[in-house]
Amino acid sequence: MDKLEITELAEKMKIINKNNQFNDGGKPNFVILLMDDMGWGDLGVFGEPNKETPNLDQMAAEGMLFPDFYSANPLCSPSRAALLSGRLPIRNGFYTNNMPGRNAYTPQNIVGGIPDYEILLPELLQQNGYRNKIIGKWHLGHQPHYHPLKHGFDEWFGSPNCHFGPYDDKTTPNIPIYRDAYMIGRYFEDFVIDIKTGESNLTQMYIKEATDFIEKQSKTGQPFFLYWAVDATHEPLYASSSFLGTSRRGLYGDAVRELDYGVGQILMALWTFGIAKNTFVFFSSDNGAATYAKTQGGSNGPFLCGKQTTFEGGSREPSIAFWPSHIKSGQISFQTGSLMDLFSTLLDLSNISLPADRPIDGISLKDVLLNGKTIERPIFYYRGDLLMAVRVGQYKAHLWTWSNSWSEFKNGSGVDFCPGENVVEVTTHDQKNHTLQPLLFDLGADPGEKYVIKPTSPVYQKHMPSIISIVKEHLANLVPGVPQLNLCDDAVMNWAPPGCEKLGRCLPIPKSNPSKCDWPH
Amino acid sequence: MDKLEITELAEKMKIINKNNQFNDGGKPNFVILLMDDMGWGDLGVFGEPNKETPNLDQMAAEGMLFPDFYSANPLCSPSRAALLSGRLPIRNGFYTNNMPGRNAYTPQNIVGGIPDYEILLPELLQQNGYRNKIIGKWHLGHQPHYHPLKHGFDEWFGSPNCHFGPYDDKTTPNIPIYRDAYMIGRYFEDFVIDIKTGESNLTQMYIKEATDFIEKQSKTGQPFFLYWAVDATHEPLYASSSFLGTSRRGLYGDAVRELDYGVGQILMALWTFGIAKNTFVFFSSDNGAATYAKTQGGSNGPFLCGKQTTFEGGSREPSIAFWPSHIKSGQISFQTGSLMDLFSTLLDLSNISLPADRPIDGISLKDVLLNGKTIERPIFYYRGDLLMAVRVGQYKAHLWTWSNSWSEFKNGSGVDFCPGENVVEVTTHDQKNHTLQPLLFDLGADPGEKYVIKPTSPVYQKHMPSIISIVKEHLANLVPGVPQLNLCDDAVMNWAPPGCEKLGRCLPIPKSNPSKCDWPH
Repeated sequence: MDKLEITELAEKMKIINKNNQFNDGGKPNFVILLMDDMGWGDLGVFGEPNKETPNLDQMAAEGMLFPDFYSANPLCSPSRAALLSGRLPIRNGFYTNNMPGRNAYTPQNIVGGIPDYEILLPELLQQNGYRNKIIGKWHLGHQPHYHPLKHGFDEWFGSPNCHFGPYDDKTTPNIPIYRDAYMIGRYFEDFVIDIKTGESNLTQMYIKEATDFIEKQSKTGQPFFLYWAVDATHEPLYASSSFLGTSRRGLYGDAVRELDYGVGQILMALWTFGIAKNTFVFFSSDNGAATYAKTQGGSNGPFLCGKQTTFEGGSREPSIAFWPSHIKSGQISFQTGSLMDLFSTLLDLSNISLPADRPIDGISLKDVLLNGKTIERPIFYYRGDLLMAVRVGQYKAHLWTWSNSWSEFKNGSGVDFCPGENVVEVTTHDQKNHTLQPLLFDLGADPGEKYVIKPTSPVYQKHMPSIISIVKEHLANLVPGVPQLNLCDDAVMNWAPPGCEKLGRCLPIPKSNPSKCDWPH
Repeated sequence: MDKLEITELAEKMKIINKNNQFNDGGKPNFVILLMDDMGWGDLGVFGEPNKETPNLDQMAAEGMLFPDFYSANPLCSPSRAALLSGRLPIRNGFYTNNMPGRNAYTPQNIVGGIPDYEILLPELLQQNGYRNKIIGKWHLGHQPHYHPLKHGFDEWFGSPNCHFGPYDDKTTPNIPIYRDAYMIGRYFEDFVIDIKTGESNLTQMYIKEATDFIEKQSKTGQPFFLYWAVDATHEPLYASSSFLGTSRRGLYGDAVRELDYGVGQILMALWTFGIAKNTFVFFSSDNGAATYAKTQGGSNGPFLCGKQTTFEGGSREPSIAFWPSHIKSGQISFQTGSLMDLFSTLLDLSNISLPADRPIDGISLKDVLLNGKTIERPIFYYRGDLLMAVRVGQYKAHLWTWSNSWSEFKNGSGVDFCPGENVVEVTTHDQKNHTLQPLLFDLGADPGEKYVIKPTSPVYQKHMPSIISIVKEHLANLVPGVPQLNLCDDAVMNWAPPGCEKLGRCLPIPKSNPSKCDWPH
């Protein structure tokens, strides 16, 4: 789809006035388009020099752009658990305390997952009449009791873990793909990703799943929540044959172009099936681009480092809200937002009460979206169990700095999360404790976190006391959840997922041998 | 001016159809909006997170955006000399060979300037009936025979050198401001820049000069060339009281916001006075943002280093073409362009022949602008007399690398042109000769020049031979001009500029004592 066409084309098709009347008494539909490892700087509208996202740029031009929007964690599983629970990973259990300040996620040998105690967004929506579908990556635990259909979703097409592989199905099983509660095949076996060429049809399948669901729901009139959690920009990268080789950026850019095309298809489906004006759409990504993957990773624009770090490159997300006739077109909001806010915002837009029995970290952005307001609120940057940094207004204070992997620090090898970047005393290779005198940055004048503000400066002395008191209050009131990402066991891998019997695809389960997971980063 | 308003507002004012008929037989007007030290990443449309340029973003949305556009040199004077002559500084004399590979410009003790032999764009336009005005910084030599009115301009409001100061008028004179051929005052005396607060009314004066000239010319019907060479983003930074303190970025952002406002005013003046459809407008900057100035400098987005370097951060410019009814709106061109192309393009658009007696480095972009074509051509990156790098297609080969200053290399002090950035073997502190095996980068997948392509790789072996032959051909046919930036003399400073007698403002001229200029970078 060319630029300037989403609404224009819909107008030409004369489907706007005919069908897209907003029913004010009704519940709006919700679509969350969540990318995987896509960086802030990967969108044309955020400065990617190859300008590969005409549909997203147009979505921004017709909606509200958020340059200051954050994930709750610089890694996939905790970020996604926070989005769906509205709560920091330290509360919902998506962290490890095997070692202090370690990143952890849900590989297929993880024992834990989303606790039943957590109330997820789709559960509350379901209780209030919504039909919910997740397309793509779940990542909140792959043991059967953690599955999406046990936590508020009615439909699922996708996988519980990352599409890593291929595996041999002997020492490690390939990752299953589910249709609703049952597996229908596995990556690299039934759902092909050609590791050599990067060719895979998966994004096209995810697009069709989405537009089919939108069409179906538009006919029932039942409100819906569509969670489109696609993963073509997460390694191993992939794109379909129509997109392979079409980007100056290589396979990563091909994947971005196909996902951008998919966003255009989904927005157009909302118009085509007459529900665009009754559907709130939000686009974002789960964490910063994987700079350590070099040219196989995305771009964090002017921001420091990337995925796995609590610098801006790891935490700031390319975010756009779109809701014709409700959100005025062409707006830019400097609201410091969080993916956790989607929990509170969607419930607010649907007049559903928040759970009253627990702290919720997300705030409702209803007034931001509909009335252009800005709400003051801090952003907390965590790595595992450690509060690393906090943003208040346009100032960010690092309590701890730590960019590189534990192994790199320990033995000189390992992953470099900040290639080509070296900010002295900031991108440290060991866990550096600055809690007594936090490192302060002005993210307005210095979005790249390059110039530490001197503790003797008036700016530091003006802003630091209130920042410290916000940190103290946060930590004083914090009750950490039971950590879910401590224990690993090869016996829990996807050997025999639900539905394997019917397919004759169950693999023998090895003897259980649980042990502490090793989280090197 | 808000977004989405340049053409829309003009339409509301009903001035488009009434007055803006394009006279195809006539010569189009030309406006070049040239910023000073503004970086590629300073525009919202190129990803600046504070999104401070609604008018420029809208100009891009209504025109053609060039993400791959270059200056001919990473420093002001040579870049500007190349723009107006269509020739590389090594040809037009705007370089030094006092030492190899040194950056040089025109401070007020420089003896040289633009040679009479060079034929400048305004000279050719003037011979073909144009009236030409320069507003702002000239920088092609300040001795009287170098002045703009001796080289094709009919009007001048501005200064010959940078607005450095304040000086004492004893050891160093303050820089004069000219109205046409005569000085009318000096910076810090008659034209105030408050160094402490950054307040100055200069940009407002430059805006008014531009809109007044546009109004005047619209009434005469004589075609014109307006060269708006403003400098609020060059140190010392300044903004008027209405803009001071309005940016999250500090004074630099205030200056950007005021210049963006100025662009909006100028575009609107073209509509208001009925000549928008007959005026080709081009926006760009003279070199990359001064990263060494830290938070007092601009942003080069994802690109490496900045001003004074031949990395992308020093050379790539934020560029937009705008010509309602001629250039289709909303286009992005990946043409590798150069500021030198403006020379050939403007002459082509006006059906004026290029000088046939000399090599011209600029190419005409007429077919790019009007027909969306892309033309293959190399980009040569020079530092002084040294060819440092070349871009061919999306590949860039560095023949020499050198990021930091000579003094820094020599004694451990000096300027850091790449703060926070450290690409091993690339951002070298000494002059590193790679001519036998150039360092290759893929600017598509790696715009930040972080990942050197291995000489053993198929990509290297595929592309390097043709790159080397392009370099060899270029060097074999190169006849360097007489270097203009070798000699310095305090006696040539702005002691007694033309017009000083009338004002009683002539200062005593010291005894001439010419010597080789010291160019440390």
